[in-house]
Amino acid sequence: MKLLRVGTAGAERPALLDADGVLRDLGGVVPDIDGELLADDAALGRVRAAAESGELPVLDADGLRVGPPVARIGKVVCIGLNYHDHAAETGAEPPSEPVVFFKAADTVVGPDDTVLVPRKSVKTDWEVELAIVIGRTARYLESHEEALAHVAGYAVAHDVSEREFQIERGGTWDKGKNCETFNPLGPWLVTADEVADPQALGLKLWVNGELKQNGSTADQIFPVAEVVRYVSQFMTLYPGDVINTGTPAGVAMGQPEPKPYLRAGDVVELEIEGLGRQRQELKDA
Amino acid sequence: MKLLRVGTAGAERPALLDADGVLRDLGGVVPDIDGELLADDAALGRVRAAAESGELPVLDADGLRVGPPVARIGKVVCIGLNYHDHAAETGAEPPSEPVVFFKAADTVVGPDDTVLVPRKSVKTDWEVELAIVIGRTARYLESHEEALAHVAGYAVAHDVSEREFQIERGGTWDKGKNCETFNPLGPWLVTADEVADPQALGLKLWVNGELKQNGSTADQIFPVAEVVRYVSQFMTLYPGDVINTGTPAGVAMGQPEPKPYLRAGDVVELEIEGLGRQRQELKDA
Repeated sequence: MKLLRVGTAGAERPALLDADGVLRDLGGVVPDIDGELLADDAALGRVRAAAESGELPVLDADGLRVGPPVARIGKVVCIGLNYHDHAAETGAEPPSEPVVFFKAADTVVGPDDTVLVPRKSVKTDWEVELAIVIGRTARYLESHEEALAHVAGYAVAHDVSEREFQIERGGTWDKGKNCETFNPLGPWLVTADEVADPQALGLKLWVNGELKQNGSTADQIFPVAEVVRYVSQFMTLYPGDVINTGTPAGVAMGQPEPKPYLRAGDVVELEIEGLGRQRQELKDA
Repeated sequence: MKLLRVGTAGAERPALLDADGVLRDLGGVVPDIDGELLADDAALGRVRAAAESGELPVLDADGLRVGPPVARIGKVVCIGLNYHDHAAETGAEPPSEPVVFFKAADTVVGPDDTVLVPRKSVKTDWEVELAIVIGRTARYLESHEEALAHVAGYAVAHDVSEREFQIERGGTWDKGKNCETFNPLGPWLVTADEVADPQALGLKLWVNGELKQNGSTADQIFPVAEVVRYVSQFMTLYPGDVINTGTPAGVAMGQPEPKPYLRAGDVVELEIEGLGRQRQELKDA
């Protein structure tokens, strides 16, 4: 299923995109799409049955804002340098184990919401990423099979990054990863049963119409199952948590000088095969 | 005021400790203590009037669990190496600007709850810290005065840390800071009006009755007002967010070999002047 949340920010209602691409209202079936729903097989079963009935009310998609596909996200864990080609472009050695950092859940916005260039930013960069949405509480998982059983689904994430804040201001990367609006997510949460192979998804990102990133999750150093297994050794993952699994090559930081960092007025579009498309305009904070 | 939340985990009710040290029920005045309350002057005024009336129902504190003093914390921002003596003991240069990292809000537990030593941990360490609780949405604050006006109050935090995960496993510090139960908070949220000078608070921590940390917030490299101002340049702080402001010297990592890292059965006690006391028993995860 393709689950989504539509409406004004903070007042979204649950919806689904049916097999014919028609937007349907889920508000009469479940109160929202969140960790509680994703961990509740009975409620998910009701959503699935309603979807298959073909009788859910149709929503007029025209002009309707799409919010993040998951409400009340607890945490956003991020994996750094997780593509061979991106590690190479940053001049870093491929890591021997996953690099973990965080984005605050309050950075998550809808897929087409405005992204703010932080004040004093001169190095705001883009990163298209496959996001994992967790469906079951995960502690100390032992196998890749077990790890995949804890995944509710997948979504497109934009891991917007300020490189000066991230790298040149001391301390950890977190300083450049948590600016307001820095994590557009969605449009859809595509349930795991509809993603045959999360390691065979094409990812693309354009800036002002020019293709900048064109990768595949096949190039991930640590695949989805390993990322979930690994992270669960260091922290407990809860339903509704999100893991951004890293970005392929093609970010601004990896280009020759003058590097084409983002400015107000730029338009970024992102797409992952089967997971939908985002479009953000940048504005000054 | 000393605000707290009492009862079983996930079902705490709001309470306050009155000027005579009597525990009083706030359940009839406000639904909970959270960011929404802290940002609501009218509701806080009702709490204050109820406290001053002396008519709030008395709660029997005996055997009552104390939870974290703030519900639905959005994010926990942490400042690293923020005491001169602690930077020295770790062998690090005092940072030229604040070192920022994160703890997931789901690591927050009550002040006397069990702390779990993660599986495969050999370097679980303690850190007593002054926590700031944010009361107003803070973006790009310009002055220390403005920063302090965004602080709702203060609390004791235990920034439990796994040093091998933090330092020896690649990537950022976050890997060693986010294990389950790694952020006991409380017992109280002491409102800012009752903390005359946040830079003159003694902090102490004992392990199995032996004093290990004995510092003062006077030794902070970046004081509370600067921490809040600084962090607001990189991310938006929301009511109910928490900032752990760093730990003074005396952590296990700073001791001679064999370093006395924590194990199941150890008991850690922490205290900050005027902010109360915590006591945790360690168990294996």
